[in-house]
Amino acid sequence: MSIDTLKLRKVAIDTYHENVAYLNRECSIYRAEGFQALSKIEVSVNGCRLLAVVNVVDDNSIVLPGELGLSQQAFKNLHVQEGALVTVNHAEPPKSMDAVRRKINGERLNQNDFDDICVDISETRYSKMEMAAFLVATGQNNLDRDELLYLTRSMLESGERMNWHESLVADKHCIGGIPGNRTSMLVVPIVAAHGMLIPKTSSRAITSPSGTADTMEILSRVDLTPSQMLDIVRQQRGCLAWGGTAKLAPVDDLLISVERPLGIDSQGQMVASILSKKLAAGSTHLIIDIPVGPTAKVRYMRQALALRKLFEFVGDRLNIHLEVMITDGRQPIGLGIGPVLEARDIIKVLNNSPDAPEDLKQKSLQLAGRIIEFDPDIRGGQGYAIARDILDSGRAYVKMLDIIRAQGEKTMDFSPGKLCYAVCADRKGVVTHIDNFQTAKIARIAGAPMESRAGVDLLKKIGDKVEKDEPLYQIHAEFEADFVFARNLADHNSGYTIGHDDQVLQSLVSF
Amino acid sequence: MSIDTLKLRKVAIDTYHENVAYLNRECSIYRAEGFQALSKIEVSVNGCRLLAVVNVVDDNSIVLPGELGLSQQAFKNLHVQEGALVTVNHAEPPKSMDAVRRKINGERLNQNDFDDICVDISETRYSKMEMAAFLVATGQNNLDRDELLYLTRSMLESGERMNWHESLVADKHCIGGIPGNRTSMLVVPIVAAHGMLIPKTSSRAITSPSGTADTMEILSRVDLTPSQMLDIVRQQRGCLAWGGTAKLAPVDDLLISVERPLGIDSQGQMVASILSKKLAAGSTHLIIDIPVGPTAKVRYMRQALALRKLFEFVGDRLNIHLEVMITDGRQPIGLGIGPVLEARDIIKVLNNSPDAPEDLKQKSLQLAGRIIEFDPDIRGGQGYAIARDILDSGRAYVKMLDIIRAQGEKTMDFSPGKLCYAVCADRKGVVTHIDNFQTAKIARIAGAPMESRAGVDLLKKIGDKVEKDEPLYQIHAEFEADFVFARNLADHNSGYTIGHDDQVLQSLVSF
Repeated sequence: MSIDTLKLRKVAIDTYHENVAYLNRECSIYRAEGFQALSKIEVSVNGCRLLAVVNVVDDNSIVLPGELGLSQQAFKNLHVQEGALVTVNHAEPPKSMDAVRRKINGERLNQNDFDDICVDISETRYSKMEMAAFLVATGQNNLDRDELLYLTRSMLESGERMNWHESLVADKHCIGGIPGNRTSMLVVPIVAAHGMLIPKTSSRAITSPSGTADTMEILSRVDLTPSQMLDIVRQQRGCLAWGGTAKLAPVDDLLISVERPLGIDSQGQMVASILSKKLAAGSTHLIIDIPVGPTAKVRYMRQALALRKLFEFVGDRLNIHLEVMITDGRQPIGLGIGPVLEARDIIKVLNNSPDAPEDLKQKSLQLAGRIIEFDPDIRGGQGYAIARDILDSGRAYVKMLDIIRAQGEKTMDFSPGKLCYAVCADRKGVVTHIDNFQTAKIARIAGAPMESRAGVDLLKKIGDKVEKDEPLYQIHAEFEADFVFARNLADHNSGYTIGHDDQVLQSLVSF
Repeated sequence: MSIDTLKLRKVAIDTYHENVAYLNRECSIYRAEGFQALSKIEVSVNGCRLLAVVNVVDDNSIVLPGELGLSQQAFKNLHVQEGALVTVNHAEPPKSMDAVRRKINGERLNQNDFDDICVDISETRYSKMEMAAFLVATGQNNLDRDELLYLTRSMLESGERMNWHESLVADKHCIGGIPGNRTSMLVVPIVAAHGMLIPKTSSRAITSPSGTADTMEILSRVDLTPSQMLDIVRQQRGCLAWGGTAKLAPVDDLLISVERPLGIDSQGQMVASILSKKLAAGSTHLIIDIPVGPTAKVRYMRQALALRKLFEFVGDRLNIHLEVMITDGRQPIGLGIGPVLEARDIIKVLNNSPDAPEDLKQKSLQLAGRIIEFDPDIRGGQGYAIARDILDSGRAYVKMLDIIRAQGEKTMDFSPGKLCYAVCADRKGVVTHIDNFQTAKIARIAGAPMESRAGVDLLKKIGDKVEKDEPLYQIHAEFEADFVFARNLADHNSGYTIGHDDQVLQSLVSF
């Protein structure tokens, strides 16, 4: 409890979302306070405070006994110059962990509890393990729908909120899991060409072979500042930007950074994550795409319906006009899987190329049509025809080119990775199943999204007839090692099933 | 997925139980593999593998682009010299996390699941957040008693197991929470003087003002090597050592390193933790002390009984002769709280000093008596009288002095911290309640256990009459800052309640 000061020093180590403090083992404060490695300390200077985990250093070239080292992000978060005198104390555990412990004990939490938790998380008072405890305690069926509403509201209020100063700000979001499913890149130009505001932000791939931001980045820049985005949307009515720069619902980002490596995701947390982000982005009208299929995130129709009700319940209470579309998630959408291959498909659909993938086109038109029907001037049921008209007439392509130029155009060269391997049918028959997981995994191992030209290019889809030894898809890679790994993976399990006509997996939904 | 080598370098940073790898941002592998800060990587060399969390370094004096730095413990765990060429790959998440996710989903796990989890944890394949997920998923009432048995068995088998080559190896354990409760330091000399084997290992304080190892360390060394401990126990039949050096049930230590900072503990995990440690230490006969009281860990008799059944169920199936004693946990045991003050109490009881604390003496005699009755030659009900005889005759004191000398004697100077403050009664009456948490907190803030002479010395216990302004206890400290903090805390809440005779809190148990 004694109080003393140390000289602040920046340590050139990047510890991502975790603040790390480096204390020399000979430091008098370290010895007196009984800190140990991985203790949490509070660093204070001029009224600024920061929580950090202690690493103990035995090398004076990293930190001297009279210094406190901070990792890069921690140093940046403290907003103080090197050499400043800082005070160090034991960190009190975050008060809201009491609520987490009550949740672990089976209690129901209220709005205040979730507010306190989200404030503490956004101020990085939670360690990774405290966030893991929160996620597990609130995972699965541990939150009822009112608690889910409270959580979403608290996450939303933890960060900044955009205001587009229009009464109708459209958005769409897919819950993910379907390779090649880049409908946003068609929906945005169609809807913007209709004149509706659709300032779309997307994520990069985390575990998939490409995210919308990765695919869009082939065509144009996507890392826009908030003011650039504002300008572009004002001119073009739409954009396709990477969502990583804005500070929208920061609690969501922090929770995801724990959820992903743990491989846990609950429907409740998905709903809270999506809706808090969309509301923070200023969306007023939202279409949620839930693909259903045996290798999709949602496998059964009853799950999709339960998820739809959750979205509707929370969305209605947070004043967003929300509609859910349950879509066909039996197989990848389009032909290419990987940034360049997907961008090629998009451009083919936009310029009405005869070999454009029909499923990608139809799904995008359905989604765009539903969004266009948010327009009070459009009669129910007319959206699809309007969307098709915009696409067929080339107006969507022109709008896309405008958006690309506004964001900063890059390339229209879609040549795939130079190493190429065709995966062929082992028998004659009909494609009955395609495994979303396996095709995504092969594309990822081949190098996507880091190697933008790597990936998988599908030649056959469900229902297509094939001869023995006819190619089903091609793997593209840029590097030999990736190529060998991906080829071996595909030889071991191609992800395709060939059978008879009557074994073809039927869609659970029809348009 | 490309494979390449880096030169191993030791980085003089202590990251405790967490392996950290330092990669230069310019390192080709870092760039090619798409690692990011906090990714988990697998480091391989000569068939040895190690999992570590990546920190990205922008300072060539810490690691060069062609090097892989490892934190001190990680370097030690890899068992390879600096300069060795190591291979780095993305770490696969531990396979047993599938079982954890099944548990999160509400499934029941079997012995194999727990075995796989404990092997992965003991090989440090789990990150802190994965351990947090496991702890929350298996906490509270989420494990049935069979699962608890499986977990205990898996934890036991995760490490080494001692064998004393005797049929009766006695031990005792208190679940904790009562300040001053140093009965082990009386039970061991009494039981060893009777001739029974009692190789006692204890922990240091983590959140309390003193652990048995801290108090014993005033009198003698406690950091014994396994062979020193073996020698001493062979000669003296007992010892009082720190349990931190042996590799017994290492999974328990790793889980505790997450459980403590999270402040979560479930009865199930407590049972698994205690029994796996005791079985690994080679104990065959065990007394468990469960104190009950409003400010004890167990507040109600029904909780104590439920906990007793759990201990009995698991203990019986793992072949340890186990008896539970539910004891009076209304207030601290003895007078001193803090290493030196507690050591003073112990010596007073051992040398039959007239001002020795009677409650500490009686409780220790009861526990020792029950252990002595494990001896097949002793008639049921005779243990207490034998224990009292050993203590009264001075044989226990002689045995304690022998153990102290064998371990390496230190001091018999029990003068308390030089800064002293008396906390006085604010009214005349009877002490009706004493708060275990508050008195422990005051002792800790005063400096215990780091400052061994700091702490709290009780002058009044429950049922004692007091005049207005009569001292209730004294706070001792060594440093001014600690002293001021502790005094302010006590002035704000002394932890004592003064009332009428009929308000005196009665014990839930009687001997």
